[in-house]
Amino acid sequence: MPSHVVDMLTIGNSFGTPEMRAVWDERNRLQKQLDVEGALARAEAALGIIPAEAADAISGAADAGRLDVEALAAEGARTMHSLNATVSALQRAAGEHGEWVHYGVTTQDVVDTATVLQVREGLDLVQRDALAVARALKALAVEHRDTPMTARTHAVQALPTTFGFKVAVWLDEFVRHLERLAAVRDRVLTGNVNGAVGTYSAFGETGPEVERATLELLGLNVPNISWQSARDRISEYAAVLTLVSGSLGKIAGELTNLMRTEIGETEEPFAAGKIGSTTMPHKRNPALLEGVAALTNPMKHAMGLTFDSMNTVHERDAISWRAEWISLPELHLYLSAQLGTMARVLPGLVVNKDAMARNLHLQGGLLLSEKVMFEVGRVLGKQTAHQVVYDASMTAVETGRPLLDVLREDPRLDGRVSAEAIAEWLDPLQYLGAAGTTVDRVVAAAEQAGI
Amino acid sequence: MPSHVVDMLTIGNSFGTPEMRAVWDERNRLQKQLDVEGALARAEAALGIIPAEAADAISGAADAGRLDVEALAAEGARTMHSLNATVSALQRAAGEHGEWVHYGVTTQDVVDTATVLQVREGLDLVQRDALAVARALKALAVEHRDTPMTARTHAVQALPTTFGFKVAVWLDEFVRHLERLAAVRDRVLTGNVNGAVGTYSAFGETGPEVERATLELLGLNVPNISWQSARDRISEYAAVLTLVSGSLGKIAGELTNLMRTEIGETEEPFAAGKIGSTTMPHKRNPALLEGVAALTNPMKHAMGLTFDSMNTVHERDAISWRAEWISLPELHLYLSAQLGTMARVLPGLVVNKDAMARNLHLQGGLLLSEKVMFEVGRVLGKQTAHQVVYDASMTAVETGRPLLDVLREDPRLDGRVSAEAIAEWLDPLQYLGAAGTTVDRVVAAAEQAGI
Amino acid sequence: MPSHVVDMLTIGNSFGTPEMRAVWDERNRLQKQLDVEGALARAEAALGIIPAEAADAISGAADAGRLDVEALAAEGARTMHSLNATVSALQRAAGEHGEWVHYGVTTQDVVDTATVLQVREGLDLVQRDALAVARALKALAVEHRDTPMTARTHAVQALPTTFGFKVAVWLDEFVRHLERLAAVRDRVLTGNVNGAVGTYSAFGETGPEVERATLELLGLNVPNISWQSARDRISEYAAVLTLVSGSLGKIAGELTNLMRTEIGETEEPFAAGKIGSTTMPHKRNPALLEGVAALTNPMKHAMGLTFDSMNTVHERDAISWRAEWISLPELHLYLSAQLGTMARVLPGLVVNKDAMARNLHLQGGLLLSEKVMFEVGRVLGKQTAHQVVYDASMTAVETGRPLLDVLREDPRLDGRVSAEAIAEWLDPLQYLGAAGTTVDRVVAAAEQAGI
Amino acid sequence: MPSHVVDMLTIGNSFGTPEMRAVWDERNRLQKQLDVEGALARAEAALGIIPAEAADAISGAADAGRLDVEALAAEGARTMHSLNATVSALQRAAGEHGEWVHYGVTTQDVVDTATVLQVREGLDLVQRDALAVARALKALAVEHRDTPMTARTHAVQALPTTFGFKVAVWLDEFVRHLERLAAVRDRVLTGNVNGAVGTYSAFGETGPEVERATLELLGLNVPNISWQSARDRISEYAAVLTLVSGSLGKIAGELTNLMRTEIGETEEPFAAGKIGSTTMPHKRNPALLEGVAALTNPMKHAMGLTFDSMNTVHERDAISWRAEWISLPELHLYLSAQLGTMARVLPGLVVNKDAMARNLHLQGGLLLSEKVMFEVGRVLGKQTAHQVVYDASMTAVETGRPLLDVLREDPRLDGRVSAEAIAEWLDPLQYLGAAGTTVDRVVAAAEQAGI
Repeated sequence: MPSHVVDMLTIGNSFGTPEMRAVWDERNRLQKQLDVEGALARAEAALGIIPAEAADAISGAADAGRLDVEALAAEGARTMHSLNATVSALQRAAGEHGEWVHYGVTTQDVVDTATVLQVREGLDLVQRDALAVARALKALAVEHRDTPMTARTHAVQALPTTFGFKVAVWLDEFVRHLERLAAVRDRVLTGNVNGAVGTYSAFGETGPEVERATLELLGLNVPNISWQSARDRISEYAAVLTLVSGSLGKIAGELTNLMRTEIGETEEPFAAGKIGSTTMPHKRNPALLEGVAALTNPMKHAMGLTFDSMNTVHERDAISWRAEWISLPELHLYLSAQLGTMARVLPGLVVNKDAMARNLHLQGGLLLSEKVMFEVGRVLGKQTAHQVVYDASMTAVETGRPLLDVLREDPRLDGRVSAEAIAEWLDPLQYLGAAGTTVDRVVAAAEQAGI
Repeated sequence: MPSHVVDMLTIGNSFGTPEMRAVWDERNRLQKQLDVEGALARAEAALGIIPAEAADAISGAADAGRLDVEALAAEGARTMHSLNATVSALQRAAGEHGEWVHYGVTTQDVVDTATVLQVREGLDLVQRDALAVARALKALAVEHRDTPMTARTHAVQALPTTFGFKVAVWLDEFVRHLERLAAVRDRVLTGNVNGAVGTYSAFGETGPEVERATLELLGLNVPNISWQSARDRISEYAAVLTLVSGSLGKIAGELTNLMRTEIGETEEPFAAGKIGSTTMPHKRNPALLEGVAALTNPMKHAMGLTFDSMNTVHERDAISWRAEWISLPELHLYLSAQLGTMARVLPGLVVNKDAMARNLHLQGGLLLSEKVMFEVGRVLGKQTAHQVVYDASMTAVETGRPLLDVLREDPRLDGRVSAEAIAEWLDPLQYLGAAGTTVDRVVAAAEQAGI
Repeated sequence: MPSHVVDMLTIGNSFGTPEMRAVWDERNRLQKQLDVEGALARAEAALGIIPAEAADAISGAADAGRLDVEALAAEGARTMHSLNATVSALQRAAGEHGEWVHYGVTTQDVVDTATVLQVREGLDLVQRDALAVARALKALAVEHRDTPMTARTHAVQALPTTFGFKVAVWLDEFVRHLERLAAVRDRVLTGNVNGAVGTYSAFGETGPEVERATLELLGLNVPNISWQSARDRISEYAAVLTLVSGSLGKIAGELTNLMRTEIGETEEPFAAGKIGSTTMPHKRNPALLEGVAALTNPMKHAMGLTFDSMNTVHERDAISWRAEWISLPELHLYLSAQLGTMARVLPGLVVNKDAMARNLHLQGGLLLSEKVMFEVGRVLGKQTAHQVVYDASMTAVETGRPLLDVLREDPRLDGRVSAEAIAEWLDPLQYLGAAGTTVDRVVAAAEQAGI
Repeated sequence: MPSHVVDMLTIGNSFGTPEMRAVWDERNRLQKQLDVEGALARAEAALGIIPAEAADAISGAADAGRLDVEALAAEGARTMHSLNATVSALQRAAGEHGEWVHYGVTTQDVVDTATVLQVREGLDLVQRDALAVARALKALAVEHRDTPMTARTHAVQALPTTFGFKVAVWLDEFVRHLERLAAVRDRVLTGNVNGAVGTYSAFGETGPEVERATLELLGLNVPNISWQSARDRISEYAAVLTLVSGSLGKIAGELTNLMRTEIGETEEPFAAGKIGSTTMPHKRNPALLEGVAALTNPMKHAMGLTFDSMNTVHERDAISWRAEWISLPELHLYLSAQLGTMARVLPGLVVNKDAMARNLHLQGGLLLSEKVMFEVGRVLGKQTAHQVVYDASMTAVETGRPLLDVLREDPRLDGRVSAEAIAEWLDPLQYLGAAGTTVDRVVAAAEQAGI
């Protein structure tokens, strides 16, 4: 059975979706390598470099389902080489045409280009799911455009806001993420077929044509020059995936905090049968949300590892390269679990408006200290106002009395500010700034972006 | 005296340029905060929110050169607040108009927007120096388009290439880096003036106008919604800077390796008086190159720290925020040293063509094993050819004899492949593939991109 | 003015203590290098290698206060060397005896050994402050041994505990941390004086005696063999400092969470005049706690950077080495701020027993679901009990009714479990397990360890 | 098929040994959880808490081989819980005694303690293999105590040393590593059985006895207090494993560099059939060494992730916890591959003494510049000597002439230093310092430590 958590039957789905596992599955890895060999043969045949029948035979034989993976493993152990056994197996499968397999290219051409094919499949899923999350965020922002709640800074209550405004901040991030994913897609989906040291040595001036024809068959972009020793596209891509993950981790953390017993403003979808604890039957944990939040740190480390792989030595080395074999699957898997879970949580999110309303009044008016200061400032000047409201707030905190009562007793306000006015200023629903229209602006931008 | 190496008199210049230090210097940090306060006042005056004379007074007083920084520090310690003392000082400096300072905004509005102003100054330098490095790379690629040398994979000699080809790979990276820097510039140079929790609470529906007017005065982009709790732009920017650094570290490492005594193909510019060792007078170390290579790991960690700051809690927190105060200056400083040094090393790089030529012949023909295999393959078939050349190569390695001599004795070649043909195949200068035209392609792309 | 936050006048004290800055200050760095040169001269004189008067002259001249640091900087820039200018200055200051300065050693001998002297000063402060924090934790654990409060898992209320128990977990960590600091001290305080490549080349068989005598004068341990290219002690040390930081960050985060408006169970010491916000006068932020929590991520990255420096190439290189010049000061500075602040927060921590008591009853009995299940299990069997209590809990959550009321209506309990019994089980103060005696055990272990 | 590289059939063995995979394999994970449940039942029976027959039944049923893992997975998906399905399966398997399964404990008790059992199996392998590597290093150090070679600093030739000295530096690291592994073993092999929030709530004052009895049956240490929210031991352990990895990565990198074509001083064991390249038959790559070197960066990131898990929230959370599920297997697997490969490479390492001898003379005497300066210094004074030898060295470098010839022409040496003396000083074999006796010292220390 597997030893890495992403592949475990019992808990693997918390660390990656089955769909994304299929992309990075060993069999698909081999298939993509065979796909590259097949496309190469067809391209070479089209250019008259190898016989057309050979290309047919090779393409036809390029089926990972027919590979004996255990035998490949044994052969790889003997030759200490990561691709040679696969090439040999394909040669045998291609019969008399086997001589023309892998003609004029090097291991890294095949492995790198195959990896990019896997990246394309992975990125398709990421873009699809990021869009789904964005749409769920848009729906929430619209629905709760005017649902008032407490904004908190430095972990303590700060001012009123709306739940829609909070969500619109996240939506705005996803507008940017979708932009970034589209932009990086062009760069990262670039293949590489240029021989042992990138110079097209085996083909001479025909080399670039072989590369172009092969990559066109595979639907990949063509590089200006070999990137065997220039891995910046991969690292950039890792960074973009990790940015998406960063937002998801933050959102999940936020919803977890709002789900605290003492706050109770949101709850992740609860399904009968869900168990929070083997010993505490009452527990309704933010299990899905924690699952999402848990994967951002692993993403950051997988990104860091990818950046390490930029440090190639000379025309190529295996020290840096192997980092990507670890990090690329991890990045896609962890992010797939985050996106998949979030796309499931958001539409079913319980938003507890009552709790939100209750919490707005928890501090006996202190939540509106800014408003009061602002209004008092119109009468007494801003500096004096700050002092008056600061003094009153500290007294209210220390004594637990409502801010209104404390302020009413302040002689500096006597005859200049009425209790009625103060009471009005303390209404949180009257102090939402431009929250609503700002949500509208973000939603419009999202729609503009196809969300 | 300073305790962090970037500010040390004796060695600080190895970790940042004086120019970049000036950008992140404490005085400039305060000045940028005052610049934001000044622009805010002018914007508010233009919108009729505060008196025009107040705006004049505030703008006029917004001069960090007049701040008593030690007094600010003492006040900050007392209030445990990072901006309040500066605001108070500005209030006092603005005299009777002081009441209108910092009107309706919050600390983070000012600190974040001021940081973006510093980022702009830093990014200007980065873009300028990245272009300089790109141009130096272009010059080297052109000059050495046809300078043959040994390509090495897995640390051992692989095949012939040209020095120009090697450099063109780097140039191609810089074409992408300049693109990325331009793309991220738009996103990262976005200000933020929207109040305590981002809702423009103090201004209501006028809030977005205040923000827009202020940011336009500062020449910054206007966000769709507050990014106080959405730091993805900053992390993306950190990633782009680190990608540039990744290339520089790799290039510096490569040139260091080529400068090994046993290879001797390049040397960083040597100036009389340069000392390699206090005790070994003969040492000519790759001191500048090591200095560049040393800073990529610190960049990666500063980037990782920046990504940590995406994890904001609720509408704002100081836990995540402070990470940027550490990482943003570090990222700019380290990269400035890398770019600055590389822009100085590349134009003066000693390229030792003799050593390159000598090393091409170091292995007695083994360097061309691919070529021989390819040509023999035309006669005997690829599989047999691989076996013949593999056997001969291993014998040549074990015995130290030239590959040609070993091959001549192989009965499988008898009468089918002449010694003359083999000798011709073993000429490294005849096996450069499409290296030259590929360099041309990259140079053309670079020129297209304004390099 | 400085560009790195640790040295800034206005905010530097949030990132390091003045005391620790003095340890890593440039002048002290130079002084420690001169101390090594002085000790070396005295050791060499004692062994008859250089004249006794030379040793006196050199020791006497080894005063960083007399160095013209700007001149050193200029000279270093010219020679591109980080120590040579200092050696030359000392030579000049030693007059005719200057010839004997730095006799037979190499730059890294001096710089590494000097760094270890700085580490010793830094470690002294760390051990002192870690002990102070441990003692403050012990006092809190003892004081609140029996202060009941809510334990929370997965962010939601779980079961009753005591505040003393919570603190005792932290105290237990600090018992281990003090052990680790003592253990690593022995290893990390090891000097290195063995010449250009570690072989004592300049001294031959006398070399080890020179090293031993020099390091004994400096009070440092003597290595079995040069560690110029074996930096594991430094990385191990970085890890130990970061473990301490990890606990501090967690504790600060925890106290921040308990200080949330909706929880209100603790508050960091508040001093009149402390300002939470420039615009919200009521804010009483966990400013100190956030300051502590903010520094654990930077510590982790500085640790990672230190581990990168293990990867030395050949007998020595500057690529890996410079990482330590960045990371060692950072690790000590950040940790000093964390320890210093925590040593100040803990003794003044406000523990709000009323809020703790109130929160225990927030869920209408659900907090005791485990207890009820356990007791019901004695009557109905565990599996049935889990089902009964799970059903009742979910109903209580959904309807907001007290658990007791829901349970009373469950027919499965009819006649088998009385309402009185249930009511008794729902008393949180009767379900604290062995919390008190466990606190005692930890406190005893701490006292055993000298805390 | 698996999606993570550690489990892939074709290439997984480059990322972990089969033996270590078995430790972290999903089935063993489940078995260890069942082992904890079994020991708990037996301990509870011994203390009279549950019936003896129940303990027998539970222990007897605790066999992961009989679990239907796919069914567990389905159940886990339904309940969204990571352990509950296993407990239920065990209950069913224990028949009528199933009620007593998992009695009074919580999920984390079982999962954490089970993980520690896996750690013990993993650590056994690590200690065994680290000792094997240490012994192989000792053998090499002894064998090559007097094999002269070139020491290199800053990538260029510096001075003579011996290969045994180089290896002894590594051996010295492993002496420390074995010490650290033994020291951390005590701390990390500590179980945890103290209930839902660590207070032994279900057992009251008997709780600590249940914990002690269970852990004694499992052979684990007993904590003073719950470490559910105090993960420092795990992070410390991760750091120690990563220190070992840091040395291995460095050693592998060093041997890779010495295996460069242009240096040729070592070669990893070559087996007939090993293939370096699919296209370059002559390639004899440092495939095993690169494989080792490639895994230190992944180790560092897995360590960093482990440290992230120290940041637990309240009494427990799943955000931080899951990091360990990823990182602990990774740390053990990667390190197992590094240790296993190195234990295989070192005994078969080809040490090419001829190449070492040849390289000592590559620079025409410059390698001994320190020696010459030292001796000339005795006659002319150190400062003058440095100048003379510096001038001569730079001339020798620029002109390619032997240092001896250049020095003979220096008028400053005329009549004071003979050519014969210089020639003698230039003999590298006479300038090995105390290399040999230092190797002896390290070997003796290693033997003392049982290596």
